[in-house]
Amino acid sequence: MYKISLITGDGIGPELSESAVSVLNTINDKLDLKFDITKLSAGDATLKQTGKALPDETVNSIKQSDACLKAPVGESAADVIVVLRRMLDLYANIRPAKSYPHMPALRDDIDMVIVRENTEDLYTGKEFSLGDSAVALRIISENASKRIAKYAFESAKQRDSMRKVTCVHKSNVMRVTDGLFARVCTEVSKDYPDIAFEQMYVDACAMNLIRQPEQFDVIVTTNLFGDILSDESSQVVGGLGMAPAANIGDNFALFEPVHGAAFDIAGQNIANPSSFLLSIKLMLDWLGQKHNDTKCFEVAERLESTIFDLVKTGVKTKDIGGDKTTTEFTSEITKNL
Amino acid sequence: MYKISLITGDGIGPELSESAVSVLNTINDKLDLKFDITKLSAGDATLKQTGKALPDETVNSIKQSDACLKAPVGESAADVIVVLRRMLDLYANIRPAKSYPHMPALRDDIDMVIVRENTEDLYTGKEFSLGDSAVALRIISENASKRIAKYAFESAKQRDSMRKVTCVHKSNVMRVTDGLFARVCTEVSKDYPDIAFEQMYVDACAMNLIRQPEQFDVIVTTNLFGDILSDESSQVVGGLGMAPAANIGDNFALFEPVHGAAFDIAGQNIANPSSFLLSIKLMLDWLGQKHNDTKCFEVAERLESTIFDLVKTGVKTKDIGGDKTTTEFTSEITKNL
Ligand SMILES: CC(C)[C@H](C(=O)O)[C@@H](O)C(=O)O
Ligand SMILES: CC(C)[C@H](C(=O)O)[C@@H](O)C(=O)O
Repeated sequence: MYKISLITGDGIGPELSESAVSVLNTINDKLDLKFDITKLSAGDATLKQTGKALPDETVNSIKQSDACLKAPVGESAADVIVVLRRMLDLYANIRPAKSYPHMPALRDDIDMVIVRENTEDLYTGKEFSLGDSAVALRIISENASKRIAKYAFESAKQRDSMRKVTCVHKSNVMRVTDGLFARVCTEVSKDYPDIAFEQMYVDACAMNLIRQPEQFDVIVTTNLFGDILSDESSQVVGGLGMAPAANIGDNFALFEPVHGAAFDIAGQNIANPSSFLLSIKLMLDWLGQKHNDTKCFEVAERLESTIFDLVKTGVKTKDIGGDKTTTEFTSEITKNL
Repeated sequence: MYKISLITGDGIGPELSESAVSVLNTINDKLDLKFDITKLSAGDATLKQTGKALPDETVNSIKQSDACLKAPVGESAADVIVVLRRMLDLYANIRPAKSYPHMPALRDDIDMVIVRENTEDLYTGKEFSLGDSAVALRIISENASKRIAKYAFESAKQRDSMRKVTCVHKSNVMRVTDGLFARVCTEVSKDYPDIAFEQMYVDACAMNLIRQPEQFDVIVTTNLFGDILSDESSQVVGGLGMAPAANIGDNFALFEPVHGAAFDIAGQNIANPSSFLLSIKLMLDWLGQKHNDTKCFEVAERLESTIFDLVKTGVKTKDIGGDKTTTEFTSEITKNL
């Protein structure tokens, strides 16, 4: 049995969480893989009620679980997710972008993954005012760069694809910080002679993700560039409705959709739960790997194919051109699992 | 007569410069607007020959001219263009992105301009090593934010479009620096009650530029985000082949293509000179405004329509699906001007 902590979030978060619980319960019942789910609160509503966006109880519960699922959080998102990433040392943020049949992708042969450094860069909160100016510290360390580079090459090795790592940075302007990042990635690349390695400036990458997205396999980059490029690449394959993310550390991992709380459509039962459910798929893969549990891989595979078979036959939510509600789409999944 | 300084650049730079000179000479001859062109060197080749990417003579010549045209520069680009932007206080980097007929844009109704702050952010070169880490300072000032915000609203006012300014930042993470930028833009927006104002996080913007590019009118943003988003938006309207940029200060301005030196196609006479020639169009507009010279506006208009009429009738270079060489395409322009 796996203990799963679930942050239910703000906006469409609670609806997506219900969908997730229903899918996990179905797996419990039908597929012989047991989950014990603990719902936790964090985010805007929690901040309002308790004065803290991320209460200590939530953190403690997460630490006692095997993995965490996190629905989107509102304006206080940074106080929840950025803090958790750093606190739990979830140093690799993994964001796959793949063209699936019947999704409005720019091309149908896109299959890449963005490996985003998740603990430093401009995300450490080191900022101060200085007269009429403000200064933020962009911190890039040798250690964090090395472990994310290794993670990227290890991912490329396991992928059933062209096996290339593209290191994205802006070392022509940030010679010291991105110079360090580029140098470390280049050094790590020497340990992987079978995997192609290239470097690209972030502006060129933002362009090439539209021009030739099929040329990418694994992109490794610093935190903020990864944030921007992963939102862009989700749209390149047809939108945030199907974009999951994994935040992975050496001992723990947290899974979430790339999209936000979408307050504008909250409570209407129209949100697409696929990003969140595909995050469960990533969680199952990770649990499978960590616990050497092949059952997890099977169910992961089955969950993904169930979602995509439905989408392929036109059973989809409004954002991707269908007419199913969140609950209807979820029932179709649980029925077909 | 206008004194124009011309940095001929690296890679495809010299070819594009010949095209530019030929167009300027034709304007001289046919259209009763006189230019005195001084060719200047800067960039990789200059660095190799003289030990300096941006020699003092080049800077002095630029300062004595009415405007500067800059062809792309290679690996030493930052030592040329970033230095010139700051030295000449060219605080506004203006990058229009418009769908033109017969260009492979994602939609045919895109018409936006990115107004990028051009003097600070992570571009001030303040970086240092600190043990196994490296730190860069991201500097955002009240003054620079205010003048770029004003520039953006003034541009929106003059545009014949929906009149909206979108302020793009990441204040949920960089609360102090981007908090300042967002606050100043919001304050400036109050002086322009007829212009709509909205804010957007940079990751959402990177996504929306693909999802709904037609929703944008004027985007105002900090330096590095502007770098990334403008390359992306050029590709959204069909590629860097037609993307010009203006670097504008209170007293001087420099015009350049958004694209780089493209060493891979240099010397082959196949580069598309349109980005650079459209930069001349932006220069003419700026000279017209500064010197109250209506002739400049006429010629600017004429140059732009000549280029687009050619493209529309299939007279185009290879990058956008045609078969004309750089010199052939240039001759067609000079013939039709
Ligand atoms: C909510 C925000 C702090 C977060 C980030 O910038 O990392 C989000 O955009 C993401 O990509 O997970
Ligand atoms: C060459 C480089 C320093 C420059 C920049 O980052 O500003 C370029 O990408 C641009 O956009 O003009």
